[in-house]
Amino acid sequence: MKDNRENRRRFIKGAALMAGAALESMRLSSAQSTRKGEKEIPIPGPSYVVPPYGERSRFVTSVRQGEFAPLQDFSGIITPSALHYTVNHGSPVPDIDPQQHRLMIHGLVDRPLIFTVDEVKRFPSVSRVHFLQCAGSSYLPLGDRERAVTVQQTHGKTSCSEWTGVPLAILLKEAGVKPSGTWLVAEGAEWKKHSISIPMEKAMDDALVVYAQNGEPIRREQGFPLRLLTPGWEGVRNVKYLRRIKVVDQPYMTKWESSVYTNLRPDGKARWFQFELEPNSVITFPSGGQRLPGAGFFEISGLAWSGAGAVRRVEVSTDGGRTWNDAKLQEPVLSKAHTRFRFDWNWDGRQAVLLSRCTDEWGAVQPTKAQVEKLWGVTPDYWLSTTNRIQHFNACQPWKVTPEGSVDNAIWES
Amino acid sequence: MKDNRENRRRFIKGAALMAGAALESMRLSSAQSTRKGEKEIPIPGPSYVVPPYGERSRFVTSVRQGEFAPLQDFSGIITPSALHYTVNHGSPVPDIDPQQHRLMIHGLVDRPLIFTVDEVKRFPSVSRVHFLQCAGSSYLPLGDRERAVTVQQTHGKTSCSEWTGVPLAILLKEAGVKPSGTWLVAEGAEWKKHSISIPMEKAMDDALVVYAQNGEPIRREQGFPLRLLTPGWEGVRNVKYLRRIKVVDQPYMTKWESSVYTNLRPDGKARWFQFELEPNSVITFPSGGQRLPGAGFFEISGLAWSGAGAVRRVEVSTDGGRTWNDAKLQEPVLSKAHTRFRFDWNWDGRQAVLLSRCTDEWGAVQPTKAQVEKLWGVTPDYWLSTTNRIQHFNACQPWKVTPEGSVDNAIWES
Repeated sequence: MKDNRENRRRFIKGAALMAGAALESMRLSSAQSTRKGEKEIPIPGPSYVVPPYGERSRFVTSVRQGEFAPLQDFSGIITPSALHYTVNHGSPVPDIDPQQHRLMIHGLVDRPLIFTVDEVKRFPSVSRVHFLQCAGSSYLPLGDRERAVTVQQTHGKTSCSEWTGVPLAILLKEAGVKPSGTWLVAEGAEWKKHSISIPMEKAMDDALVVYAQNGEPIRREQGFPLRLLTPGWEGVRNVKYLRRIKVVDQPYMTKWESSVYTNLRPDGKARWFQFELEPNSVITFPSGGQRLPGAGFFEISGLAWSGAGAVRRVEVSTDGGRTWNDAKLQEPVLSKAHTRFRFDWNWDGRQAVLLSRCTDEWGAVQPTKAQVEKLWGVTPDYWLSTTNRIQHFNACQPWKVTPEGSVDNAIWES
Repeated sequence: MKDNRENRRRFIKGAALMAGAALESMRLSSAQSTRKGEKEIPIPGPSYVVPPYGERSRFVTSVRQGEFAPLQDFSGIITPSALHYTVNHGSPVPDIDPQQHRLMIHGLVDRPLIFTVDEVKRFPSVSRVHFLQCAGSSYLPLGDRERAVTVQQTHGKTSCSEWTGVPLAILLKEAGVKPSGTWLVAEGAEWKKHSISIPMEKAMDDALVVYAQNGEPIRREQGFPLRLLTPGWEGVRNVKYLRRIKVVDQPYMTKWESSVYTNLRPDGKARWFQFELEPNSVITFPSGGQRLPGAGFFEISGLAWSGAGAVRRVEVSTDGGRTWNDAKLQEPVLSKAHTRFRFDWNWDGRQAVLLSRCTDEWGAVQPTKAQVEKLWGVTPDYWLSTTNRIQHFNACQPWKVTPEGSVDNAIWES
C-alpha cells in the first residue's frame, strides 16, 4: 500500500508543484468570502433549463459501434441502457405500442391465456441484476480480415442491467402446464418472428418476463415492452418483444438454434444447445487502442461474469500469464451479473502483457486460448475458414502494453 | 399463497376467457410453421436504425416535474439517470468542459494540490450504490396552498444510483491533512459557488469524489464532471461540480447550512448540522393520483432507505396503521441505498389506508406524523406559518384508497 502511494505520488507530482503557483492565479478565495465578489466568477456555458428528461453532457460522446457496447467507457457494473449491446433478428427494430401488445401462453397447458402488458405488471414482481451476452460475443476475425482492436470489438456484446419483471413460473402456473409440457418455444414480435426453445426446468427456475431495465421501461432495442430473461444463458434465448410462449414436448430446432448459433466441429457435427455462458472476463482498462501516458501507477479494471452463478475470484497477470495475483472484486458480487474487478499496477515502463482470469462459484476456470483450442480440437484458422465467428469463446484476453504506452490486442500471439 | 393465486386468477379471468376465442383470430401459427408465411405478419412501426446512443420508446413519457423525480414510474432500485431528482443552487446548471475543470485541495494541508479530472480518475476507485435525498424532500404545503397529490410531489426528491469514484480519504492523504484540520469546506463550480462544511471524520470514512453514475459519466444536472458524495447525508452536502476542498479547523456556517437547510423551532432557534438522513419509506404503488381498476390482487410496492446504513425491515399497513405486516425486501439490501419492498395485497374493495414503515439496521424506526410533531414540538400549522417546508421530515406516508379506487394523499388526516 505504501508502495502504491509512493507511485501515485509520482504521477501527481506535477499537480503538486503546480498547486503552489496556481493558488493565487485561480483567484479562489476562502469559503467565507464567497458572499462577496460572486460576479467575478464567469458563468460556465450557455443558459440551460433542466430538462424533464435529462441528457448527458455534450462533452460525453461514447457510442455503440453497430451492435457493440463501449465497455472501455463503463464504470461499475451497470451498463447505461442507451449503450447496451443490441443484436437484432430482423430489422427494423419493432416500435410497439404497449397498449396493443399481447403475450399469449398456449400449447400443452390447461388454460391458454392472453395477457396485456398491464396484466403482466399486476403479478408479483422481482428485480435482479443480470448480465446478457451474445453467444457470439468474442469477435475473432483472422487472417486477411480486419482484426479486432478495442475491447468494444472483442467483448462488446455483453452488458448488465437491473431487470424487473414477473417470474415466468408464476405465469406458467396460471396457465397450468400439462405433465407432457417439458419444453417451451418463445417467440418475439419482430417480423421475422425470432423463436427459440427453452427447457421447462429453466422456465420454472429463474426465468423472468421483464418489463423494466435500470428503473424504467425496457429500451426499444432491448425488447420493449416485454422480454424473456433466461439469466446466464446465451443472449439469443432472452427473447425480445416477447409475444408468445408455446408449451411443447420437445425442443423445436428453430433456425436460430440449429444453424446460426452453433459451433461447427471438424467432424462436420455442430455443438447444439449450449445454453449456459461460461466463466469469462476481460480487462477494460488498459485495453486495445488506449495509450498510457508513461510509467507509474495505474488501476487495472475490468469485468468478469459467469452464466453458472457468481464470480468467486478474478486473477490478473501482468507478465503474459506467467504469474497471477488476485484482483479486488466490487461488492456485492451478484449471481449471473457482471462483477467489476480492480488491480493496482505499478508499470515499470517495459513491455507487459495483461490478462484476467475468472473462476466462478462452481470452480470453473476461464481457459487460455490454447486450452480452448485443445478442448474443442480446432484452431483459429479453422474458425476463420468456417463461419469467421465462434460461439461461446471465452479465452483469457491478452492486451500488450508496449514501452511507448500503446495497448494492442495480443490474442493472435497467445 | 394459494389465496393470492385465487385472487390473481380473478383478475386474469377475462384474459383466460378471451384466449380461447382469440387464439385463431391472432393467427399465431406454431413455431415450426414460422418458416413460411412470414409476410403475413405486419411490420410493427416505421423503419428504425439502432442509434449509437439509444433513446427510450416514444410510448414512454415519464418526466421530472421541476426538481421532482417520478418515483411512481420506477422499478427496482436504480433511478434512471435522466430522471434523477435535481436541486440546483443557482441557475444555469454549469456546462463544464472536463478538460478545463480542476479540483483543488488546500487549506490546512502539507501539500496543496490541483487535479485534472483525468488525474482524479487514475486513483484507485470504488463503485457503490447509494441514494441521495434533499433534506427538504417531503413536500408539505398546507392550508390554502395547493396540496401535494402524487408521490412525485411528496417524496420526489430522492433517487438512487451506482456511483463510481475515488475515496476522498485517498486524495486527502495525498495532500496530507494537518492535525488541526478537523473540517473541510467543499465548493462547487456554479456561479453561486455553493459551499458547505463537512467534518473530517465523514471525509475520511466513506465520502467519495465521484465521476460516474450508473455506468457513464455523471449527468450534467448531477454534477458533471466531479461530485462530492457523502453517503447517507442530506443532498446539499453532496457538492456538485466539485472544484475545491479547503481543509479548515471549524465548520464555516455557510449560507446553505445556516439558513436555507435548517429547521426553525418555536423558541426561535434552528436545528443545524442535521447531516444524516433518517429512516424513511414510501409506497409508490398504489400512490396518490393513481386509480385501481377494482377489487382483487395488487402488489403494493415502494422504496425504503436510511442514511445510517441498511434497511433491516419494512412493514406495511393496509388499515391506517392499526396492524402491520412485514414486506419482502429486494435482495441484496445495500447500505445507504434505496431498498425496494413488495407486499401482496388482496383488496376487498372497501376504503383502505396504506402506509409503510422502515426500520434500519440500528433499530431506528420511521415515525408517524404525530410522533414527528411530538418529537419536534411543532405542528403542520407551525411549519406552514414559517417556511412552508420542513427539513428532514420522514413521517410514514398514508395513501387512502377509496371504494371507487382513487388514491389520495391522507397525510393531513393522519
